[in-house]
Amino acid sequence: MLGSGFIGRFYADSIQGYRSRDKIVSIYSRRKESAKKFADDYNVGFYTTNLEEAIARPEVDVVCISLPNHMHEEAVMLCCKHQKAVITTKPLGRNGEEARRMLEAVEKAGIFNGYLEDLVYTPKFIKALESVQNGALGRILWAKSRETHPGPHSDWFWDMELAGGGCILDLGCHCVEISRSYIGKDIKPVEVMCWADTQVKPIDAEDHAIGLVKYENGAIGQFEVSWTFRGGLDLRDEVMGTEGTIWINSFLRTGFDMFTTGKGADYVAEKAESNSGWLFPVGDELNELGYNHMFMDMFNAMENGSSPKETFYDGYVVNCILDAAYRSAKSKQWEPVKLDIWRGKTGVTKDSHLVEFDKDHYLVKEEVTHYGAKKLILKNKTTGKISERTIE
Amino acid sequence: MLGSGFIGRFYADSIQGYRSRDKIVSIYSRRKESAKKFADDYNVGFYTTNLEEAIARPEVDVVCISLPNHMHEEAVMLCCKHQKAVITTKPLGRNGEEARRMLEAVEKAGIFNGYLEDLVYTPKFIKALESVQNGALGRILWAKSRETHPGPHSDWFWDMELAGGGCILDLGCHCVEISRSYIGKDIKPVEVMCWADTQVKPIDAEDHAIGLVKYENGAIGQFEVSWTFRGGLDLRDEVMGTEGTIWINSFLRTGFDMFTTGKGADYVAEKAESNSGWLFPVGDELNELGYNHMFMDMFNAMENGSSPKETFYDGYVVNCILDAAYRSAKSKQWEPVKLDIWRGKTGVTKDSHLVEFDKDHYLVKEEVTHYGAKKLILKNKTTGKISERTIE
Amino acid sequence: MLGSGFIGRFYADSIQGYRSRDKIVSIYSRRKESAKKFADDYNVGFYTTNLEEAIARPEVDVVCISLPNHMHEEAVMLCCKHQKAVITTKPLGRNGEEARRMLEAVEKAGIFNGYLEDLVYTPKFIKALESVQNGALGRILWAKSRETHPGPHSDWFWDMELAGGGCILDLGCHCVEISRSYIGKDIKPVEVMCWADTQVKPIDAEDHAIGLVKYENGAIGQFEVSWTFRGGLDLRDEVMGTEGTIWINSFLRTGFDMFTTGKGADYVAEKAESNSGWLFPVGDELNELGYNHMFMDMFNAMENGSSPKETFYDGYVVNCILDAAYRSAKSKQWEPVKLDIWRGKTGVTKDSHLVEFDKDHYLVKEEVTHYGAKKLILKNKTTGKISERTIE
Amino acid sequence: MLGSGFIGRFYADSIQGYRSRDKIVSIYSRRKESAKKFADDYNVGFYTTNLEEAIARPEVDVVCISLPNHMHEEAVMLCCKHQKAVITTKPLGRNGEEARRMLEAVEKAGIFNGYLEDLVYTPKFIKALESVQNGALGRILWAKSRETHPGPHSDWFWDMELAGGGCILDLGCHCVEISRSYIGKDIKPVEVMCWADTQVKPIDAEDHAIGLVKYENGAIGQFEVSWTFRGGLDLRDEVMGTEGTIWINSFLRTGFDMFTTGKGADYVAEKAESNSGWLFPVGDELNELGYNHMFMDMFNAMENGSSPKETFYDGYVVNCILDAAYRSAKSKQWEPVKLDIWRGKTGVTKDSHLVEFDKDHYLVKEEVTHYGAKKLILKNKTTGKISERTIE
Repeated sequence: MLGSGFIGRFYADSIQGYRSRDKIVSIYSRRKESAKKFADDYNVGFYTTNLEEAIARPEVDVVCISLPNHMHEEAVMLCCKHQKAVITTKPLGRNGEEARRMLEAVEKAGIFNGYLEDLVYTPKFIKALESVQNGALGRILWAKSRETHPGPHSDWFWDMELAGGGCILDLGCHCVEISRSYIGKDIKPVEVMCWADTQVKPIDAEDHAIGLVKYENGAIGQFEVSWTFRGGLDLRDEVMGTEGTIWINSFLRTGFDMFTTGKGADYVAEKAESNSGWLFPVGDELNELGYNHMFMDMFNAMENGSSPKETFYDGYVVNCILDAAYRSAKSKQWEPVKLDIWRGKTGVTKDSHLVEFDKDHYLVKEEVTHYGAKKLILKNKTTGKISERTIE
Repeated sequence: MLGSGFIGRFYADSIQGYRSRDKIVSIYSRRKESAKKFADDYNVGFYTTNLEEAIARPEVDVVCISLPNHMHEEAVMLCCKHQKAVITTKPLGRNGEEARRMLEAVEKAGIFNGYLEDLVYTPKFIKALESVQNGALGRILWAKSRETHPGPHSDWFWDMELAGGGCILDLGCHCVEISRSYIGKDIKPVEVMCWADTQVKPIDAEDHAIGLVKYENGAIGQFEVSWTFRGGLDLRDEVMGTEGTIWINSFLRTGFDMFTTGKGADYVAEKAESNSGWLFPVGDELNELGYNHMFMDMFNAMENGSSPKETFYDGYVVNCILDAAYRSAKSKQWEPVKLDIWRGKTGVTKDSHLVEFDKDHYLVKEEVTHYGAKKLILKNKTTGKISERTIE
Repeated sequence: MLGSGFIGRFYADSIQGYRSRDKIVSIYSRRKESAKKFADDYNVGFYTTNLEEAIARPEVDVVCISLPNHMHEEAVMLCCKHQKAVITTKPLGRNGEEARRMLEAVEKAGIFNGYLEDLVYTPKFIKALESVQNGALGRILWAKSRETHPGPHSDWFWDMELAGGGCILDLGCHCVEISRSYIGKDIKPVEVMCWADTQVKPIDAEDHAIGLVKYENGAIGQFEVSWTFRGGLDLRDEVMGTEGTIWINSFLRTGFDMFTTGKGADYVAEKAESNSGWLFPVGDELNELGYNHMFMDMFNAMENGSSPKETFYDGYVVNCILDAAYRSAKSKQWEPVKLDIWRGKTGVTKDSHLVEFDKDHYLVKEEVTHYGAKKLILKNKTTGKISERTIE
Repeated sequence: MLGSGFIGRFYADSIQGYRSRDKIVSIYSRRKESAKKFADDYNVGFYTTNLEEAIARPEVDVVCISLPNHMHEEAVMLCCKHQKAVITTKPLGRNGEEARRMLEAVEKAGIFNGYLEDLVYTPKFIKALESVQNGALGRILWAKSRETHPGPHSDWFWDMELAGGGCILDLGCHCVEISRSYIGKDIKPVEVMCWADTQVKPIDAEDHAIGLVKYENGAIGQFEVSWTFRGGLDLRDEVMGTEGTIWINSFLRTGFDMFTTGKGADYVAEKAESNSGWLFPVGDELNELGYNHMFMDMFNAMENGSSPKETFYDGYVVNCILDAAYRSAKSKQWEPVKLDIWRGKTGVTKDSHLVEFDKDHYLVKEEVTHYGAKKLILKNKTTGKISERTIE
């Protein structure tokens, strides 16, 4: 385990708690006391402030990188050197360039690589994606993911150089991969439009952004990200298809409401802002946030010699989309997604969905109005004229 | 009353039902049988297919225009000619040009004019706006409004020429005025970015669009509109401020859930798609959709000789914002909002919100982490360096 | 208007706000300064501390009693004496005996009488009852109503003698009439089982109670009432029928969520407990609590010479049911509802609902299991034996 | 594993899926083809229709009983004979008598025993109980648990003799243990009042029941159970304390809403009634229903030589409470809970919670009214008189 911070602890809780046969054997931290504390807390045999040493230990089977963004590349390269399987927290790189170098390095080294995008492993997401893939929503038109909260936990997040960006990079990477999964990971993202601003925090990076990602088949991904949201951690997805709709609330409204005058309460949930009044705890954060199913997939894939659902390649695609978002926020135009490496379909076109009514007309809409009549809206195939028929 | 269609009937139900002293005395419809049926249903003394005749009747105090978009201007001009107070359904015009002509005409004629934007009159909106104006949310950063459903009721909506546009014009006018109200109607909308597409329906106009409206103070309005949504009428607003958040669901989740196997059910709610399974009726549509409070405001304003909350001027501003949205959807760039007439503030700038921590630092963030510690993220005032302090 | 307290003001807001042609012309209060303040606030021409004087004024068409429970009877008798139409807040009496005297008096006097049970006039309830009456839920099996909050507003509520009881009388009257309406107001309530206790408040009356009311057709009404609930005003109904289910949340979850750090907020909603954190305001309390539709029904009925939906007779039935609840809380047994006056059906029996499957079997249940098979549970008509068939 | 039915398969999915090191080695079923199919599906080495043989296998460490109720005792006795650890599905016995014999047998045999009450192991319940135990709700006044659905899966449930009862036994056992846990498992249940009826199904057992359980400290447990509910599986808990409230919805409203016109959907969730319209899937049923955490606790306890959270003793207490419920449904009175074996506290009395205001008064209530004033309701300590003070 590389990194003993907030996310490293979340990972450790999940790794050692869930499958009950996986064990952290070596911990690296930039500060000795943090490494030692982590080793004590999680019963880890070896701790160090030397990155290579932590990786090279013979008892290490897989290296889990939960370091600040600017240290990912160095750590990955060391894994390649020592031929260790590697799984890395999100985002993979600070930009597409960095991500591509890591992708190429692990593939050249032939080592197992996993991208720790937990939010496509939440139980709700998994079930929803299944429904989408079974066709319950028809053709997907739009997939939005929103992650907003009052700001991240560690200092380096707030530093442009170390983090590589603000909330777009920190949170947008989740949202982009969620939308991309609903729309189809083999469908090429084509261009991005993004608004970003620093509205509240005294920082250089953006603290609020909204972006649209257009895919080759005409579907639209949307991300809404912010470090300025008040009220807790807002994690919601919405998907629209020709045959249905999905709404997922992963954190703030999950069927668990608590009111308390404030006696006796302590930690409620990640990024909750209050300990009294109406609170919305989550039953099991590690599970609801996808950590359990993510590590299960990673370790099972390693054992089976297969690929996990999320690899460095996915991390690379996400970085390239976010790069386009940053360019668009500056240029104020739609910006193309530059993907040197693309392994999905190409040349996909937008579906035509004219619904046949009779030999002369397409059906536009059919409905029952509030005063009881049944209405049909039709379009003449040759003239294009719209007409209305009421059927009592 | 001009127009006997879906919206005309909604208006009539509200006008005659609520204040209980207002009376429809004259009804115009393009088709005689519709005019007659309306007159019968609502006990109206006079019906006609002649627009001017309907307006000119001496017993008419105020003309309520609920006609297709392309007929608004003609009807408004006749009201000016006959010096009748006029209230018009949304959108005011098919574009800013048309709206400006109507605005200038009614002001020149000196007649009472009201813009029937019902969704800023819903009980929830009124209460929410009050909270925002009282400062419960601090400075407003973002205000989104979403209106999507499976498509409108009448044929003319689907005809580009008659309607002037698709779901942007039909639904976006609501969303834009909602966001604008939360942000402040005296704050100038500056530019718009919009994506629009025809994804499902066999029509020329857009059936799905998402837009961002930037205001002079840095706040962002957002609209999400569609005629392709499945599941009913989705009407939701979200507002983020520096001190709080508001979420409003006006139609599909209002605390009224019904499951039925389907026996005995008939009309559930506007644009509901099903009569069995889980349904989400609305207690009192006319009230929840704002019709009652809207007509109350209009008629009270008329009686008091004051202006209603929404006038032709507001309709004009909305049209200009939507014009910019249409231009942006084509140009794929942010497009300026062209407002020849602007009566609000000018030269407003973005607030600076640096939070003082001590003489050397700004406070970026303060929080309690999931393992119990209290963390402060600070920024050095001179070096800009970010640092972290943990307080046990 | 008799009474200038909390409920009197709610009534006044609704009466003068909604229909816009009804006017309070005379106000009685026990304290002169309260009467005067009310008169000033609501622009009432006459105020007094003399009950009879307030009633007898010639310009008074209808007397609205919003007095403490122990004063209802006296006020009603004065209305009879002066032949004034009378509408009375809930509960009608402190017990069935008192209610019966009032009922007999107004009927003997031949005056219009209305029972101000607002919660069967909420927009949600009205719509839900319509669905029930249309058969959307099939045969009604159970109808629960819950009203709990942190305690009432005025001192007299807490005094056994003046109020006649605790939360059973104060809140149970609502719940009982709601359940009774869903089950059918012509179905006779037969017996009641009730638990009641004083768990928290330093009072003699009960502050928490749960009761079951059995109806002649086998349906069950349930009430849950408390003055010890923390979190606001919890108003929920649930109805189960053979074909469906209704869940109504009238106050705390109505599609309006607000988070605020607490700046700028003041009055949120009736009986809300906090001004910061997550709050759940109601768009329009007067409307959501049924006041508008209630007074509309009352005044329309008066004008039409018909009966309102809720009369003194209904108030009397409710009082008799609550009497049985109080007896049961003491005797710890089911207690019969003693109704000297009953105007509904008699001799109704429980429906038999055997579902025919084939000539030898009844169908107990049909379902699709989680591993894909279809199962039928059947009962042999003659042997009564239960069997199971799986259809792949 | 004894039993290959619905619940057996749920258990197997959880046991073999979660900890990833536990293995089913022997399966018994009453029907050979079922045993074989289960063995094939779950890769079980041995199958049999001989109960004792299945238990006695040397490779069996722990016997998991998921048999119909009437076979529990026989299976438990065989586990005692062969000295095998045993975990049993709920309810433990068909009545307290049977449960007591099993409890005494396993304790005499000195074997590990666990009671598979999954619903006190759901992530939400665990978190909620933690909050309750930390005092977030103050003193617990009332704890309700509701489980209703359209009826169970297997034939034997519908047979009085085999099942031992109807929905009280099947579902009430869950609800009773949930309430009991919130109130405190060391607080003695004293008496029970219960209504039960057969309202819809053509069976002898009850298909709908509501019960109240009074505890020695004055707290009230409540269960609402039914096999006649329409709309899916309704699993909700509500807890009221002097300082707070908890509402848990475990199945039908968990932040996952899906609308579908019905193409492509198949199994949605346990006991869902529809495949189109608005559906409410659960992300991960095994986890949400508590199976994962339950088996984790059972196996960890076995390995540590400790007791699991739920043992045969808990199953016995639950059975005794349900026995009292059945007696009460017949006698129409509160019936005492007969507990020959009681290991918790005795002689607990109701807390007094008089809140001191000043030397002469108790505080009854403090609030801000809707017209802005602050009110105090006070009670004189000596006279008991209630008074009101308004503070502007």
